[in-house]
Amino acid sequence: MFTVYGDIFSGNCYKVALILRHLSLPFTWKKMSVIDGDTQTKNFRNLNPNGKIPIMVLPDGTILTESNAILNYLAHDSIYLPDERLARARVLEWQFFEQYSHEPTVAVARFIVHFLGAPTNKKELLIEKQAAGYKALDVMERQLKDLPFIAGETYSIADISLYAYTHVCEDGGFCLKAYTHINRWIENVESQKGHRTMSLLAEEIAVRNGK
Amino acid sequence: MFTVYGDIFSGNCYKVALILRHLSLPFTWKKMSVIDGDTQTKNFRNLNPNGKIPIMVLPDGTILTESNAILNYLAHDSIYLPDERLARARVLEWQFFEQYSHEPTVAVARFIVHFLGAPTNKKELLIEKQAAGYKALDVMERQLKDLPFIAGETYSIADISLYAYTHVCEDGGFCLKAYTHINRWIENVESQKGHRTMSLLAEEIAVRNGK
Repeated sequence: MFTVYGDIFSGNCYKVALILRHLSLPFTWKKMSVIDGDTQTKNFRNLNPNGKIPIMVLPDGTILTESNAILNYLAHDSIYLPDERLARARVLEWQFFEQYSHEPTVAVARFIVHFLGAPTNKKELLIEKQAAGYKALDVMERQLKDLPFIAGETYSIADISLYAYTHVCEDGGFCLKAYTHINRWIENVESQKGHRTMSLLAEEIAVRNGK
Repeated sequence: MFTVYGDIFSGNCYKVALILRHLSLPFTWKKMSVIDGDTQTKNFRNLNPNGKIPIMVLPDGTILTESNAILNYLAHDSIYLPDERLARARVLEWQFFEQYSHEPTVAVARFIVHFLGAPTNKKELLIEKQAAGYKALDVMERQLKDLPFIAGETYSIADISLYAYTHVCEDGGFCLKAYTHINRWIENVESQKGHRTMSLLAEEIAVRNGK
């Protein structure tokens, strides 16, 4: 059994739950709150010195951090991660794009609006993050013009990585109306076997955890 | 022959030159300057819509972006990238740590000090980046306490990713004196076959490009 420490409403944590769902792997979900300081306790820093969620504990107690590294581990030898050299590099290319250009802009804007309530002292930062977030969405739109999925012809963990914050980006004040190819891609992603949106997975986990 | 578009004094670009050197693979280096706007031209955006260096052109014309994805591609089936599932996830774990927690802090501080000359209007940002950069260095120090290399017992592309900006972090106002384990690790990295520091590789490329 895998144990995930995370907040299902964080895209980075949701990614891990989604691949586990695709692979029909059972898991335990330990609920964490960044806002309540759960990631900065001494106990948690013993598990991840970088103080970030998600982390995943393997059945033998080994701890893995970094959402996209966890996705690569779980998707190993599955249809969600191609084995061929260039195809695999393409998946990583989009996952690194996600962590460097998409998450720190789209997800941070969402955090400011949705979780902090868009306070006045974050207004300047929010405008900056939204502008940079639209640039990342533009790069995705261009890539998806000729391809059904972000890293090529088939659905992969690169799609999971980018779908995580894109499908909830309106929470951060983004409007996807003009992004025809991203919208078609979202439909493609959502039609995959085992798919659950963030809110559906949140419900499943809440029910399972007896809430 | 591989062609790299990059600035050898950018850690992200240097990583690619270093793995090519380790693997004794010949390459052409196309010199780019972020400050001069080379990455924002229409021509370059046709190669990489995200407008970032490095990019690498494979012998068949295929373009790869994102430094760490390029490292994974080049190191495939080599001693620099383990094939075993957990070991490979560990390498990725530290490469994603690098792109999310280390590069945007340590490298950005260096950019402000070394390339922009620490202008007054960037003072607040610099202080913030240095504080966050030290946190990333602390995480590395803790990991390297018990391990010779960042992802385990052997040298890998995860070391290349993190060495790139760490070995020049004093350019960004960081002091590594108290980081015993990082200093020992830097020595370990620098003793690897084919290793070149950033300034040595810069000289090699300049000589080869006839300058």
